[in-house]
Amino acid sequence: MVQAVDADQYYAELEDLNVAPLWRVDESGGARSPDTIRPGVWRWRDLYPRLARATEMMDLETGGERRVLTLINPGMKPLLGTTHTLTTSLQLILPGEVAPAHRHTMAAFRFIIEGQRGYTVVEGEKLPMSPGDLILTPGWTWHDHGSEGEGPMVWLDGLDVPFVRSLKGCVFQDFPGRRAQPLKHAGPDSYEHFGAAGVLPAKNRPRSLYSPLNLYKWEHAYDGLRRMQAAGDEDEYDGTLAEYVNPITGGHVLPTMACYLQLLRAGQHTKARRQTNSTVLFCIRGSGYSVIEGQRYDWADRDILVVPAWAWAEHVVDPGQEALFFRYSDLPVLEPFGLFREEVYRPNDGHQSLADA
Amino acid sequence: MVQAVDADQYYAELEDLNVAPLWRVDESGGARSPDTIRPGVWRWRDLYPRLARATEMMDLETGGERRVLTLINPGMKPLLGTTHTLTTSLQLILPGEVAPAHRHTMAAFRFIIEGQRGYTVVEGEKLPMSPGDLILTPGWTWHDHGSEGEGPMVWLDGLDVPFVRSLKGCVFQDFPGRRAQPLKHAGPDSYEHFGAAGVLPAKNRPRSLYSPLNLYKWEHAYDGLRRMQAAGDEDEYDGTLAEYVNPITGGHVLPTMACYLQLLRAGQHTKARRQTNSTVLFCIRGSGYSVIEGQRYDWADRDILVVPAWAWAEHVVDPGQEALFFRYSDLPVLEPFGLFREEVYRPNDGHQSLADA
Amino acid sequence: MVQAVDADQYYAELEDLNVAPLWRVDESGGARSPDTIRPGVWRWRDLYPRLARATEMMDLETGGERRVLTLINPGMKPLLGTTHTLTTSLQLILPGEVAPAHRHTMAAFRFIIEGQRGYTVVEGEKLPMSPGDLILTPGWTWHDHGSEGEGPMVWLDGLDVPFVRSLKGCVFQDFPGRRAQPLKHAGPDSYEHFGAAGVLPAKNRPRSLYSPLNLYKWEHAYDGLRRMQAAGDEDEYDGTLAEYVNPITGGHVLPTMACYLQLLRAGQHTKARRQTNSTVLFCIRGSGYSVIEGQRYDWADRDILVVPAWAWAEHVVDPGQEALFFRYSDLPVLEPFGLFREEVYRPNDGHQSLADA
Amino acid sequence: MVQAVDADQYYAELEDLNVAPLWRVDESGGARSPDTIRPGVWRWRDLYPRLARATEMMDLETGGERRVLTLINPGMKPLLGTTHTLTTSLQLILPGEVAPAHRHTMAAFRFIIEGQRGYTVVEGEKLPMSPGDLILTPGWTWHDHGSEGEGPMVWLDGLDVPFVRSLKGCVFQDFPGRRAQPLKHAGPDSYEHFGAAGVLPAKNRPRSLYSPLNLYKWEHAYDGLRRMQAAGDEDEYDGTLAEYVNPITGGHVLPTMACYLQLLRAGQHTKARRQTNSTVLFCIRGSGYSVIEGQRYDWADRDILVVPAWAWAEHVVDPGQEALFFRYSDLPVLEPFGLFREEVYRPNDGHQSLADA
Repeated sequence: MVQAVDADQYYAELEDLNVAPLWRVDESGGARSPDTIRPGVWRWRDLYPRLARATEMMDLETGGERRVLTLINPGMKPLLGTTHTLTTSLQLILPGEVAPAHRHTMAAFRFIIEGQRGYTVVEGEKLPMSPGDLILTPGWTWHDHGSEGEGPMVWLDGLDVPFVRSLKGCVFQDFPGRRAQPLKHAGPDSYEHFGAAGVLPAKNRPRSLYSPLNLYKWEHAYDGLRRMQAAGDEDEYDGTLAEYVNPITGGHVLPTMACYLQLLRAGQHTKARRQTNSTVLFCIRGSGYSVIEGQRYDWADRDILVVPAWAWAEHVVDPGQEALFFRYSDLPVLEPFGLFREEVYRPNDGHQSLADA
Repeated sequence: MVQAVDADQYYAELEDLNVAPLWRVDESGGARSPDTIRPGVWRWRDLYPRLARATEMMDLETGGERRVLTLINPGMKPLLGTTHTLTTSLQLILPGEVAPAHRHTMAAFRFIIEGQRGYTVVEGEKLPMSPGDLILTPGWTWHDHGSEGEGPMVWLDGLDVPFVRSLKGCVFQDFPGRRAQPLKHAGPDSYEHFGAAGVLPAKNRPRSLYSPLNLYKWEHAYDGLRRMQAAGDEDEYDGTLAEYVNPITGGHVLPTMACYLQLLRAGQHTKARRQTNSTVLFCIRGSGYSVIEGQRYDWADRDILVVPAWAWAEHVVDPGQEALFFRYSDLPVLEPFGLFREEVYRPNDGHQSLADA
Repeated sequence: MVQAVDADQYYAELEDLNVAPLWRVDESGGARSPDTIRPGVWRWRDLYPRLARATEMMDLETGGERRVLTLINPGMKPLLGTTHTLTTSLQLILPGEVAPAHRHTMAAFRFIIEGQRGYTVVEGEKLPMSPGDLILTPGWTWHDHGSEGEGPMVWLDGLDVPFVRSLKGCVFQDFPGRRAQPLKHAGPDSYEHFGAAGVLPAKNRPRSLYSPLNLYKWEHAYDGLRRMQAAGDEDEYDGTLAEYVNPITGGHVLPTMACYLQLLRAGQHTKARRQTNSTVLFCIRGSGYSVIEGQRYDWADRDILVVPAWAWAEHVVDPGQEALFFRYSDLPVLEPFGLFREEVYRPNDGHQSLADA
Repeated sequence: MVQAVDADQYYAELEDLNVAPLWRVDESGGARSPDTIRPGVWRWRDLYPRLARATEMMDLETGGERRVLTLINPGMKPLLGTTHTLTTSLQLILPGEVAPAHRHTMAAFRFIIEGQRGYTVVEGEKLPMSPGDLILTPGWTWHDHGSEGEGPMVWLDGLDVPFVRSLKGCVFQDFPGRRAQPLKHAGPDSYEHFGAAGVLPAKNRPRSLYSPLNLYKWEHAYDGLRRMQAAGDEDEYDGTLAEYVNPITGGHVLPTMACYLQLLRAGQHTKARRQTNSTVLFCIRGSGYSVIEGQRYDWADRDILVVPAWAWAEHVVDPGQEALFFRYSDLPVLEPFGLFREEVYRPNDGHQSLADA
């Protein structure tokens, strides 16, 4: 239509004006090409020794605020992130140590893996940590960690850092004096108020965007999961899936992250499915493998499995013992916008072929 | 202004036309005069022998569908009702008896007082009854009762009959064949799915106007109440007040009735208050008296106390032991319309004078 | 089972104790028998002359606060009420008169029938009245009426008195000094803020249980109705039915009453249906008849038709001109409790037989 | 603590394992450093000639689906985006042209700038375009554009592409045959159903995450804005600000974007404020300048002003004539997560100093 030289000049002018011709670029930035976020398994046998050795690499007095190893998805580089919305990390503190108080707009939770007599303080409430407990530190709440036990205290940290970062919303603040915050409650006050089954205080129920309950004890959650399984709450994609909920609303525990316990039977082979949310699974116990986008990923006790958004995924449990997972996802950031979708895998009775022999 | 004889004819014409002149009548029907609904205590020592004797007066095979004594507020006559919105009754069945299945638009619950191995079936789910349990039979759900135990099974029935009746909404239906309904679940299925603390099934959560949980076990509710009290959930009007809630929404268990457990300390004298909702209290244990509109009402174990809407009320617990109540109200029928109000009693440090020496 | 004489004594004792045996009484108070609320038409030709003559019977200075004729359903006696939940009345004021300010917990609206330069003041906002306008005076808002025009100002009053009365919720208060309240806004301020199509103020939107908009102008509502009809919003039960809504929430204008404009085509014969809500229709223009529970009720311009809850009703418009109604119902008091139901009439192609020749 | 060589090896191992030590990296990815998104003004005098000339550069038959120039924020490169969440573009079609139907998960709207007898078809509904109209094409709705007029049709496109892209949610689909979709409605059907002031269809109201109304006509929105201003809806930060709303819910028109009309008085100098949402303003008419982060940006008729998240911004209108803006923001993507915050500028009576002399 026009002379090439004119066109060159035209497009150069557009570039100078910070304008792009949509007929020559892909506005959605590669939406039609495969996504770069990778699935993966991070093995406990790799992570734990390095985490333990980190006690030699840094100390909480002088070296940093948290002794944390965070899982980096290669597809997120140079940014940090386990998926495009979620962060998964492991944290360790030693007896007598204190990870000083701070707060940030990013929401976090802690799923306790091992140790005794550790604690997290959230807004002045001292929450004891025991393996299997879930502890919330919602966005912009002051929190610090410590341990009065005998051995190392280790937990999984889940955060929404990449999501909040994508909204330019990350704000971080140290507690004055870089120390633990003073206690308002010597024990898990929110658990005493809001942690019972079936009843709530008749008055003074907070209406926040996050759960008022900061401690979900292992024994209750696991008992609930077992009872749901016994009552038939089970399907061929997720086995038995219990969600931790805000007792005031029945909703997700945090406005950006949903947390679950999941039980798959010994020998179970789930059907493949893909979802627009991304999911991180921590294997509490059991072993097996998952097939994600045609690749096999083996996992066993305490390994961490990452399933990116819109990746076909199915799980296979080894015979002989069931598999128990703690799992979380970014589903809550999709729902308000109608962006959650899922699709089940139809061919081959719902099972992918493995890409390599 | 006009001749009296003309006026007489004028008003007679209006009457013929089914029209009333608002300047001569009180449209709100006596709203400004004292209400007729009476406070009162129904004593267990009066009720229980008559209820026991009712087994001689009627049998469930031939005499009626339910062996129920219902509390009649004198101010409701000739209609039945314990308050203008609520019904309170006592029900008894003997071992081997069956109260056949029916359903009605009126919602009901059962608070179990004594007996073992009784059960209620709700929509095919068999719910065991133990003292202190709360069982819901929401509006239009099929329900029947039975007992496989050794002694009589006795419980308190709470219903919203007068409210639904005022809306011309009462519909009643017998189960075909006047018998127990077939079981879909041999045990308390809804309790297995929705009865845990802090977790819910990730999928298949019903969104009804009432709680999906049909059984609230005593031990959980009482434990929750105790923990709330220990954590400081207490005030000078209600002591410690725990509400039974819909686990899916955190809302009232039924769209028309809110249910509570309440704990008052030994020797406690609450301050007087009045509310636009009416309240029924069942004394689980303890003794004392209440002052309602200046009159004293004594109560002890298993007595039933009725506090009408907008009646000044305060409670006094005998020294030496605490008082524990199951309590319910019609608060949910007021909230959607902005008709809930309350007022605290200011004079005399919040305590009424007794009307009679 | 027992001796009759014992039984007599037993039942006498129960009566003394204010307890009733449920096997001998109907708890729902006649729910299974036909309801007493009657359908009916109140004719303008009957009402208007009496309303006009009421100016001789009372004056607003000395005789009462409102010059109102209220429609009495014979089935409500001795209580007042047009249905078991709703009140319908006609009100008239003369030029220069003032109906002094008061407020009450009962909600009300005014649908203007005739006159010019009348006004209602609601919470200090002066709302001009023109035929076809809908003016809200929600529960517990101060309101007074006046006229600066030349002839009588006449409107229909809709209230929820019987419903609020059934909840013992009627409270009434005169404005200090028995006079008009002072103005905060010389014009319809809420209409300026919230009355536009498609836009709202970005800030300061009230979140009340009722609409913040106190004036719905005839020309907008009628234009909307016409456009809906043209776009095909029409069915065989209601013709074209437009609901006045709260612009902040899209919900009913008042928490207890829903208001509508309705258009039926010339010659249209709707199909019969019954609903658990009761409905009052004011015929703005047109003529025809309705069949309610097999009885024929003729109506024409400005007549008022009452359709009780659960009464079969269908409408027949005379040939040659359409029928236009303002209509309101108590639907909002049923919805929160799941008590709204409807049923369509199946026999005879949806049309009832007339009971009498 | 440890030998440097050991540390080097340790950190190398972590990198091999795709794990990062949080004490050596900034997890929030530069949250504490200044953001890269730049404020700016795109001038109509620069954009319009290039847009007009684009008709020579591409044609809709063979060259691309849309003739669009999109504003590129330098801080977003290499990705496209006007802010980190929003896209702003200008689109032009010529008489007789058709931009073929497609759909995408990204939501869009069109604010019409000039031309007559253009149209957009959304899900089979043909929406006429006139200057000042707002047309919605919500996520995943089929839409195409055409013109039956005489001159070019030009409008502003607003999309949420960068936000949806950050959630890996971009999906795009061409309508079969790369052509206009068939019409279901020859006119703006949704406007006829849902575009009236104060009334809605009583039945069949869709409950989607976006507004059911696809056309907001200029005359209604502008009239509403004027009336709000006259009624005193005005403050020192935003002048008079009217939000386009979903008539069914009163909420934002799209789940990801809020749209507004804004009026500033002649000579007005607003106070500075910063907000966590980003905002794009299209100057419908008027002239003046804005101070954003201490820099001056001049604007006049049809210029586009971009205010990034958390940038101090204030606006100064030239004397003699008011300024009228169409404005949109990503506020809805922040609200569900509690990430909306704002701060007013306290020093110097709320006005920034200009950074350069």
